[in-house]
Amino acid sequence: MQDTKENHVPMVVIKRLPKYYRYLGELVERKVERVSSQTLADMMGISASQLRQDLNHFGEFGQQGYGYRVEGLYQEIGRIIGLEQEYNMVIVGAGNLGQALANYPNFGKRGFILCGVFDINPKLVGLRLRDNEIMDIDKLESFIKSENTDIGIIAVPKEAAQGVADSMVEAGIKAIWNFAPVDIKVPPEVFLENEHLADRLMVISFRLKALGYEED
Amino acid sequence: MQDTKENHVPMVVIKRLPKYYRYLGELVERKVERVSSQTLADMMGISASQLRQDLNHFGEFGQQGYGYRVEGLYQEIGRIIGLEQEYNMVIVGAGNLGQALANYPNFGKRGFILCGVFDINPKLVGLRLRDNEIMDIDKLESFIKSENTDIGIIAVPKEAAQGVADSMVEAGIKAIWNFAPVDIKVPPEVFLENEHLADRLMVISFRLKALGYEED
Repeated sequence: MQDTKENHVPMVVIKRLPKYYRYLGELVERKVERVSSQTLADMMGISASQLRQDLNHFGEFGQQGYGYRVEGLYQEIGRIIGLEQEYNMVIVGAGNLGQALANYPNFGKRGFILCGVFDINPKLVGLRLRDNEIMDIDKLESFIKSENTDIGIIAVPKEAAQGVADSMVEAGIKAIWNFAPVDIKVPPEVFLENEHLADRLMVISFRLKALGYEED
Repeated sequence: MQDTKENHVPMVVIKRLPKYYRYLGELVERKVERVSSQTLADMMGISASQLRQDLNHFGEFGQQGYGYRVEGLYQEIGRIIGLEQEYNMVIVGAGNLGQALANYPNFGKRGFILCGVFDINPKLVGLRLRDNEIMDIDKLESFIKSENTDIGIIAVPKEAAQGVADSMVEAGIKAIWNFAPVDIKVPPEVFLENEHLADRLMVISFRLKALGYEED
């Protein structure tokens, strides 16, 4: 494996890796040992040649005529994604969305450990949320520093989002996942993922409209 | 405008349209009248030639040397996305995630009208959530039929997700947005968007790992 290659993988391929990982995980659970590129591509909803191209970014996994070894490919994609290590995560905003994210079942399983939840509302501070006691937002920066926090999740109203991001950046966070419906700005060394839920609805809207045309 | 062309636009371009729409909306609010392809491309984080390619899928918007008319392009992209009409939406699952989605501020603004919220838990049925009274899941199918519901949002535990999807399909829903961490199946005539939140964390993980390499 050439690790250096992984830094130049197109984002569109990177975004497909978790899906590969999920489907291969299902095959592992079903104790399937080998899978053809065609079968795996069908599961993924892409062409077999696209699949081979994707996986070629990371080296040679398959064997002509024998398909892919499921367990090996699963482990390897997990390693490429970076799942062999754990990440510390904090959530800022303990409203419905913050609580939903804190309770989301698959994060911990994948090695994303929620180690702190913060809110500005004194009525929420001190309450327990899963394994975490909700802390005052004042403690955010010192917590991120002392706990070596990797990922900060923002689940506050949009007016407060940039301020929270600035505190996270100041404290040395490495990545931010922003659920507030606003594009926040961070310095280039911090990886930022803005989660625009309304954008997803617009894609659905476009598709519904396209369906309408087909019926005309 | 050739509407028929819109059915053959690559998904990757469609997924960028809401982002164009958001940035153009900001320019409209700031009363900017014209924008160059370079400026808009910089805002979007893509190249100017990529931007021109994207917009060429929908006809000719720009004028060589004059840039794009902001208001016109904004309206047109809204029309292309299908925002000139309203869509009826239901949410099934009134836990934290369902409540967070019901309260998400930008849905209604874009014409996505939440007209019903359902849950199986008798303690939640009858409670009010924004403008909606939470209804018993038993009423879901008849409601979808009578209210001509376009979009069904699934915010239930993963074990219940496929059953909810089946009821929605049975009742004639047109699109499903699934937040349960499981890939559900629907017939091809129903548009399905599976929202895998853990996948986003894996993309972040990949990036953090790549950052690590760069520091070596």
